[in-house]
Amino acid sequence: MFSVGEIAKSLGAEAVGAVDFVISGAAEPQDAGPDALAMAMSPKYGEALSQGRARAALLWEGADWQALGLEAAIFVARPRLAMGGLTRMLDPGQHETPGIHPSAVIDPSAQIGADVTIGPLAVIGPRARIGNGSLIGAHCFIGADVTLGVGANLREMVSIGARVTIGDRFRAQPGARIAADGFSYVTPETSGVENVRKTLGDQGEAKAQAWVRIHSLGSVRIGNDVEIGANATIDNGTIRDTEIGDGTKLDNQVHIGHNCRIGADCLLCGQTGLSGSVTIGDNVVLGGQCGVADNTFIGDRVIAGGGTKILSNVPAGRVMMGYPAVKMDTHTEMYKAQRRLPRMLRDLDALKKAVFK
Amino acid sequence: MFSVGEIAKSLGAEAVGAVDFVISGAAEPQDAGPDALAMAMSPKYGEALSQGRARAALLWEGADWQALGLEAAIFVARPRLAMGGLTRMLDPGQHETPGIHPSAVIDPSAQIGADVTIGPLAVIGPRARIGNGSLIGAHCFIGADVTLGVGANLREMVSIGARVTIGDRFRAQPGARIAADGFSYVTPETSGVENVRKTLGDQGEAKAQAWVRIHSLGSVRIGNDVEIGANATIDNGTIRDTEIGDGTKLDNQVHIGHNCRIGADCLLCGQTGLSGSVTIGDNVVLGGQCGVADNTFIGDRVIAGGGTKILSNVPAGRVMMGYPAVKMDTHTEMYKAQRRLPRMLRDLDALKKAVFK
Amino acid sequence: MFSVGEIAKSLGAEAVGAVDFVISGAAEPQDAGPDALAMAMSPKYGEALSQGRARAALLWEGADWQALGLEAAIFVARPRLAMGGLTRMLDPGQHETPGIHPSAVIDPSAQIGADVTIGPLAVIGPRARIGNGSLIGAHCFIGADVTLGVGANLREMVSIGARVTIGDRFRAQPGARIAADGFSYVTPETSGVENVRKTLGDQGEAKAQAWVRIHSLGSVRIGNDVEIGANATIDNGTIRDTEIGDGTKLDNQVHIGHNCRIGADCLLCGQTGLSGSVTIGDNVVLGGQCGVADNTFIGDRVIAGGGTKILSNVPAGRVMMGYPAVKMDTHTEMYKAQRRLPRMLRDLDALKKAVFK
Repeated sequence: MFSVGEIAKSLGAEAVGAVDFVISGAAEPQDAGPDALAMAMSPKYGEALSQGRARAALLWEGADWQALGLEAAIFVARPRLAMGGLTRMLDPGQHETPGIHPSAVIDPSAQIGADVTIGPLAVIGPRARIGNGSLIGAHCFIGADVTLGVGANLREMVSIGARVTIGDRFRAQPGARIAADGFSYVTPETSGVENVRKTLGDQGEAKAQAWVRIHSLGSVRIGNDVEIGANATIDNGTIRDTEIGDGTKLDNQVHIGHNCRIGADCLLCGQTGLSGSVTIGDNVVLGGQCGVADNTFIGDRVIAGGGTKILSNVPAGRVMMGYPAVKMDTHTEMYKAQRRLPRMLRDLDALKKAVFK
Repeated sequence: MFSVGEIAKSLGAEAVGAVDFVISGAAEPQDAGPDALAMAMSPKYGEALSQGRARAALLWEGADWQALGLEAAIFVARPRLAMGGLTRMLDPGQHETPGIHPSAVIDPSAQIGADVTIGPLAVIGPRARIGNGSLIGAHCFIGADVTLGVGANLREMVSIGARVTIGDRFRAQPGARIAADGFSYVTPETSGVENVRKTLGDQGEAKAQAWVRIHSLGSVRIGNDVEIGANATIDNGTIRDTEIGDGTKLDNQVHIGHNCRIGADCLLCGQTGLSGSVTIGDNVVLGGQCGVADNTFIGDRVIAGGGTKILSNVPAGRVMMGYPAVKMDTHTEMYKAQRRLPRMLRDLDALKKAVFK
Repeated sequence: MFSVGEIAKSLGAEAVGAVDFVISGAAEPQDAGPDALAMAMSPKYGEALSQGRARAALLWEGADWQALGLEAAIFVARPRLAMGGLTRMLDPGQHETPGIHPSAVIDPSAQIGADVTIGPLAVIGPRARIGNGSLIGAHCFIGADVTLGVGANLREMVSIGARVTIGDRFRAQPGARIAADGFSYVTPETSGVENVRKTLGDQGEAKAQAWVRIHSLGSVRIGNDVEIGANATIDNGTIRDTEIGDGTKLDNQVHIGHNCRIGADCLLCGQTGLSGSVTIGDNVVLGGQCGVADNTFIGDRVIAGGGTKILSNVPAGRVMMGYPAVKMDTHTEMYKAQRRLPRMLRDLDALKKAVFK
């Protein structure tokens, strides 16, 4: 429970009015009860205050808090950033019972740090090391020889395969799968797929064959401050580790193939997938349902809109869109022309008639 | 075990011939043994009856059951609807042992209704409430303060995070994840992504920055008669709950971002994904692998074909297709013109030569 | 631990130099320590040898091993095939403790073969049969009446629903879901979706209705030598079983709808999805994020590039690309023309001015 003044201080923001007012939680303006702090950080949301009963609000700079009928207010310059600080303060968590649940199955050779919570029916494998202050949810599986840094926060049913190394403050949502075997096969003789890659369309004389499995000898190496979404999957590398850099965040159902190398501070949104051996720089943002072909290189600061399928290398700083991906402004131009296509067809027919009779 | 007559009565359909014939189960016509009820609800399937050994069948209206060599038949006006009633009667289920398995870990403060079955190694958290007649599969996780209505049916390894509220007759398939944290981040200063959203292609002068997490204070609220597919994921709302209306069904690997509001009686097919803060009306059908951009509004009764990526608002009743989504008939027209593009190019070159010399 | 000579023998390859040299593992050339076997199977990787400390390497045919500074070498004709044999020899596995873990919950009527390992907290249902030499990972769920052949290898948290039949040497990655219920619904009267399927765009007068569930009476039948990826999902058939043929491999997050029939030796790459009742022949390869509409037929040896959405039948041997899918060379031609569209538009305007004044 925090007062308006405490919240403002934590956000580095200015508070006015009844700063000692203790709020019960955050609420959208129209839903806010009398003890809630209403999120009204733009004039549009300010209007909705009258539909709720809030007496205190987070407001945009320059808002007339008294005219809005409030008793206390906090002014923020960058609303979404304020949301970061505020939601961190008010996060109620999952109500895990501190300590190690007696039903957890922990190998005697595992090293569990100080102040670690391990939920019911979790399994911790041989020689695994769990950093201080970590929270391992119910039904989690931590494999043999895994290293997990300090302050990890794993929701329920996360699995981490053998030999994975993860830095500090790792977060994983329910059902995240780290270190599945890579999907890698080869045929005894040249396959149709190999021919198609060269010819872009012709299978040649390749005969039908069964697949020989290439096992994964590598594992997965993850930096500090990484978050992995629900039911996301990250595959082991073939010879070396698949790598994910510091500060990178993967959304739900993201898929990272074997041998990928992702840099620092990237965002990969929901259901995006990387094939094998993709290399991604720092500060890259891929929207939802993007795909990247195998062995592709994506430079620093590349941004791709939702649904973009990247089939060839992308230089640093570029903004991409489409299937196959092109620069976003090229895509817009192509798309506008496509919408005019049926009309172009009619114009062309008229021209042909006029010119060629 | 039901007789032909009992099945017909349950379906509100007409039975003829040996209506007391007791069937052993349902089968496709060509696979049917002598005691099975063959599914032959169109002339095409009627022909296949001769390949099997069925003596009884579900037939289309007007079929000549005796000429088909049958001893008993049921006539149905709407075959797929009859499949609904029939498969409900014959569903063999998963053979769960009734009662609470001794290996389940149930918090003493949880309230378990009457006639509830809880499978092996399930975890029920503090203050969770499970409605009467519910079936909680093996390895399920029900978090703190979850409310689950009457008659729930959860397959194995379903997880439901803290504070989720779910109505009656809820169904969830294996690995469904309800109430993962939302994927929501912000940079301290304006990011390249924010600039691209305004300019549709230009990152401007934004500098590379690390991401600040926005925690989820909201949870998930689900109506009555909802079904969630295997390994589907539904994220918590940021301030308020993510909402799913009565009668809505989500297929396997569907992803619902934070703050989405889905109306009643919608179908979202396999691998479809909604970004954050998407609003969907009632009776909407999205085919497989559809995507919806964040903050988009989709009206009632919208239908989108498989693979459609909806990047802007769609009014009620519209039928959509494509990436980016357009009206389905526009898409068909654009696509036909696209297939003629290489030829248009040649025509245009000929015209240029003729006109401009 | 193997010597260079033993590895060469196993690969059917030629070894030269210090063939008794015992290697500690495999490594990429630049990362290789003095006891590792470096993977340098093309001149490009050969150059990287000088950055590491390898004394032994797998080399391309014709390489000058002594000039590369090596003490021992193995020459391979088909590098990726050699990777198959080598990684199989060196796979360190997941370090499961042999035998049946006391925390596993095994129904007394289950039949467990010889030399079976069952990990902590696994659940084996009534009458399930597990073949000799199988490895069932931690937290796995094997449902009632499941049959699993010899030599299965299930990673953690795999679930297999009731009545599934699986052949020999089955592999499943973490979180794979076999035998979820099919996603199948029907409305009491004709729905807008049914009208749209006929008209390709017009919902007609269909009224909004709730959905009636069609239950799954079938299960899943899987051949020998099949592998299923992490968090992949395979649905039960409606009346008969969903089927997957011998030697077929599904990558992570692949989705197989109810009633699908997949032939032998197919590869379905990451996040690819099949709607219901899709039939696929033998030796088909679908790249990542492909989609196939329901009731579609795909012939033997079809190859589809990443992101391809197949909306109608594809004859055997064809190579496909795009949304909607067309032949890959048609796609390339259409795509090139699309990129020229903005210019075509300008040319067309100039022509119209010149011809029509």
